[in-house]
Amino acid sequence: MVKSVIRGIAPHVTVIDVTHHIPPHDVRAGGLALVRAVQYLAPGVVLAVVDPGVGTDRRAVAVEVGDGAGVFVGPDNGLLASAVAMTGGAGRAVSLTNEEFQFPAPGPTFAGRDVFAPAAAHLANGVDLLELGEQIDAVTMLPGLLPITRDEPDGLVAEVLWVDHFGNVQLNVDPEEIAELGERVSLRWGEQRRTARRATTYGDLKPGEIGLVVDSYGLLSIALNVRPASEDLGLRAGDAVTLSEPS
Amino acid sequence: MVKSVIRGIAPHVTVIDVTHHIPPHDVRAGGLALVRAVQYLAPGVVLAVVDPGVGTDRRAVAVEVGDGAGVFVGPDNGLLASAVAMTGGAGRAVSLTNEEFQFPAPGPTFAGRDVFAPAAAHLANGVDLLELGEQIDAVTMLPGLLPITRDEPDGLVAEVLWVDHFGNVQLNVDPEEIAELGERVSLRWGEQRRTARRATTYGDLKPGEIGLVVDSYGLLSIALNVRPASEDLGLRAGDAVTLSEPS
Amino acid sequence: MVKSVIRGIAPHVTVIDVTHHIPPHDVRAGGLALVRAVQYLAPGVVLAVVDPGVGTDRRAVAVEVGDGAGVFVGPDNGLLASAVAMTGGAGRAVSLTNEEFQFPAPGPTFAGRDVFAPAAAHLANGVDLLELGEQIDAVTMLPGLLPITRDEPDGLVAEVLWVDHFGNVQLNVDPEEIAELGERVSLRWGEQRRTARRATTYGDLKPGEIGLVVDSYGLLSIALNVRPASEDLGLRAGDAVTLSEPS
Repeated sequence: MVKSVIRGIAPHVTVIDVTHHIPPHDVRAGGLALVRAVQYLAPGVVLAVVDPGVGTDRRAVAVEVGDGAGVFVGPDNGLLASAVAMTGGAGRAVSLTNEEFQFPAPGPTFAGRDVFAPAAAHLANGVDLLELGEQIDAVTMLPGLLPITRDEPDGLVAEVLWVDHFGNVQLNVDPEEIAELGERVSLRWGEQRRTARRATTYGDLKPGEIGLVVDSYGLLSIALNVRPASEDLGLRAGDAVTLSEPS
Repeated sequence: MVKSVIRGIAPHVTVIDVTHHIPPHDVRAGGLALVRAVQYLAPGVVLAVVDPGVGTDRRAVAVEVGDGAGVFVGPDNGLLASAVAMTGGAGRAVSLTNEEFQFPAPGPTFAGRDVFAPAAAHLANGVDLLELGEQIDAVTMLPGLLPITRDEPDGLVAEVLWVDHFGNVQLNVDPEEIAELGERVSLRWGEQRRTARRATTYGDLKPGEIGLVVDSYGLLSIALNVRPASEDLGLRAGDAVTLSEPS
Repeated sequence: MVKSVIRGIAPHVTVIDVTHHIPPHDVRAGGLALVRAVQYLAPGVVLAVVDPGVGTDRRAVAVEVGDGAGVFVGPDNGLLASAVAMTGGAGRAVSLTNEEFQFPAPGPTFAGRDVFAPAAAHLANGVDLLELGEQIDAVTMLPGLLPITRDEPDGLVAEVLWVDHFGNVQLNVDPEEIAELGERVSLRWGEQRRTARRATTYGDLKPGEIGLVVDSYGLLSIALNVRPASEDLGLRAGDAVTLSEPS
């Protein structure tokens, strides 16, 4: 219905789906998916909705980035923050308060269709951001929740950001953060301690061997060859993993 | 393949997916999804297929609605009926019997690709409805199956129409039907009896509190805050729920 | 992201999704889905990725078919082979080695986005195949894995190619292969022996009756009316089934 609303207002627009597989209410996963995708997106309007607070007083916003080259539209709940930061930071921003650019809603619960889709379509038509509502200071928007690593005496404490479709376990670790470690890296989580080998690609790994691979986003992933590492190792998004030299 | 067939016949057409998540053979769920979506669809041709009787003598039909502003194409098994009624009722209708506007099928089992997609594409190209087959009287089409509520001595007997992606439980109840009830409403189903509070939005509900919220289609939904009400309360599509004043 | 990359390079292109439901790493299932779809696809560039060997030395290829009417782009792992054969066989082919037509990748693991999508988009823009890399002899490409039937003393030994969304069990059997058998056909697999009736359509079958139906690809499928045959009969892709006259 969101696409049909956009089609009705801005028939020339091409809609590209990034994902429809974010778990319900998981703003963190939505924000991560967006920040992964955003560097590859064609210029235009980005509409994102993961919105457990729909109908409450959380704001609906539109935010320009990169000198107006792109606009993000969505709820002000942290979902957009990391992607906005990665694409040059926020420029002008508005709260979507102008009901002339919204659909009259039968209930308060579907902002995607009634508020965000019309806003995105009008922006794609060239309507100026400031017509869509009251200007706000972007620093008042809720920040994102991307975790950062911590250096501790017994190693680098990382977090599982994401488990992909293949069961690869993406960490919030840039390869440069473990440049001083050798080819073999100790991984510790919960009661588990395992050794991983740094590999260029999944196919380099022997059956059962745990690999640390630079994934398609430039971050380190824990992976097995063809097997889902998340399942075999019992790792899930949000888990802490400590990386160090093997003892 | 349906989209590729449409592309081959009518290259200028934009296809918008309403849903691909109807359970196999569930004509009722398909009809409900369609009637929910249809008021928001851009003008054009609507192609719908949930078709357990494909290849039998159930007719394949195309039906004009709203003075020819739109056309529905699909099986004559009740799938289209409620959506047709909601968009102004049936005008001209045909049985898709003209094989010149169909694909020669290797087997009798994929009408979506071989019959409905070509028909929809030719209609989008401006082919007149009556060229696609024999005209039929729309009153001979199978009616839809939208249940209606019943007023009984111990309350209003409603039915669960739908459980959405978030586990909200949509009832076939217009808010006006329970206008005389207060803020708290007794819900009874099977051996269960619970009290719900009327709320404006999901976020207004306390943890564990059951809410009755006007959803995005203007109907009452049983909901919890962030939790899937269907799972926590054991409610599924088709279940009967009685609404009354709390005793 | 693949679509967004294509959009960025070739904005005029319409992308049609064939499927996103191939199980991870299942090259055989991907090849079968492609060969099924390909005869119905509109002319153009076909991009297919099921790629457990991404980042290893398996080649990335583009292959012309049918006097250049179409091009397949994907990994050289057997995925494309059957579809190429069905659409007229390979003409010119290249290994995608020219990095000018690729994205600089942060890691070696997402060829869909960084290698295949740019190649497909440039081809859609009219870039000549030979600009994308080094020409190769198509006979050096890995062949596909479509199984063929065997005539044995106790019957025709077939294989389950595919279980569709409805649980119908597609065999690698052309109806002509069992032309000499009557209306009733004995099916044997594992310890099971059942009798099926040849039927024109699923709806012709009585509850519980096993049917052999010519499906939408022109192949025989084992089916039940409305029920998933795969589940009720315990049949899965790759299983061997022997067809013969009932004794």
